[in-house]
Amino acid sequence: MPGVGPRSAERIALWMVQAREQQPEGIARAIGETRAAVHPCVQCGFFATAELCEICADESRARELLCVVEQPTDILPLEKTSAYRGRYHSLGGRISPLDRVAPEDLRIASLLERVEKESPGEIIFALAADVEGEATTNYLVELLKKYPVTLTRIAHGLPAGGGLESADELTLYRALSGRTRL
Amino acid sequence: MPGVGPRSAERIALWMVQAREQQPEGIARAIGETRAAVHPCVQCGFFATAELCEICADESRARELLCVVEQPTDILPLEKTSAYRGRYHSLGGRISPLDRVAPEDLRIASLLERVEKESPGEIIFALAADVEGEATTNYLVELLKKYPVTLTRIAHGLPAGGGLESADELTLYRALSGRTRL
Repeated sequence: MPGVGPRSAERIALWMVQAREQQPEGIARAIGETRAAVHPCVQCGFFATAELCEICADESRARELLCVVEQPTDILPLEKTSAYRGRYHSLGGRISPLDRVAPEDLRIASLLERVEKESPGEIIFALAADVEGEATTNYLVELLKKYPVTLTRIAHGLPAGGGLESADELTLYRALSGRTRL
Repeated sequence: MPGVGPRSAERIALWMVQAREQQPEGIARAIGETRAAVHPCVQCGFFATAELCEICADESRARELLCVVEQPTDILPLEKTSAYRGRYHSLGGRISPLDRVAPEDLRIASLLERVEKESPGEIIFALAADVEGEATTNYLVELLKKYPVTLTRIAHGLPAGGGLESADELTLYRALSGRTRL
């Protein structure tokens, strides 16, 4: 389990064996139930308990905006900002020849299907600001530019609270070239 | 001295006393010479050995671009990107009521003078992406918007190499609202 080292694991194991209450059984049941209940949303790939996830099922969500992310877990931090009221599409990864992840391994066909069916006004690419994230974005831009949709990418630049002296060269380069009008 | 703790300081002091060669004297001389030779550029505030710093004296530098930074040290990382060929203006700090730094304490009068004299086409604000950096930028934008000059700010967003899961809420919020067209 992530974040649990050998010492913590031993403490947890001993607690499980020695606990008087029925808590360990409760946890075991909860794990089984969660595993059985949660599966990827058929539309966007986010975590869902029904066929559609809560975001896809929410009719108040703008259909004009579609935000493409790598992993379903990337949707959580974006939701926390409360700045986005559109819908998502999780690719399930990014193109990475070294890890043997090809475009066919990603949920790209279903993205194209959604673009054709839902015809959003804008697709926002919110992939990681690294080589593979950029490559995946460029690949999708090539595929999508034949559709009548505005393609945008989240800004790359100085992180919040950061000064110039703590930024690396590439971040500053992108911050300079992506400067915005005031 | 920054980065020198008590143990390092002791080692350095003992080396200075025991060194057989004339290296310690050389260092003392170099410190004295550097202190005497380096002073702020009268035009931009960067480190200079002549009246003007090397950047201000460089005629190949575009006069149309002026980049406003907080400290002269902020010019170094921007120069390392090799992405900027314009000129700089260091304010010598940022407006910070808590630290008792008022607009009068900054090199703002000389900035306005330069804008009037050099009439640059674009002023790029490259201040820190925190509250005080933003406040100083806004203050200067108010002062400068009467001049016929384009005012821009370096991009705030995802730092290079960063994924969505490692970005904080405010950074993601700014990355989303500052998204760029592809």
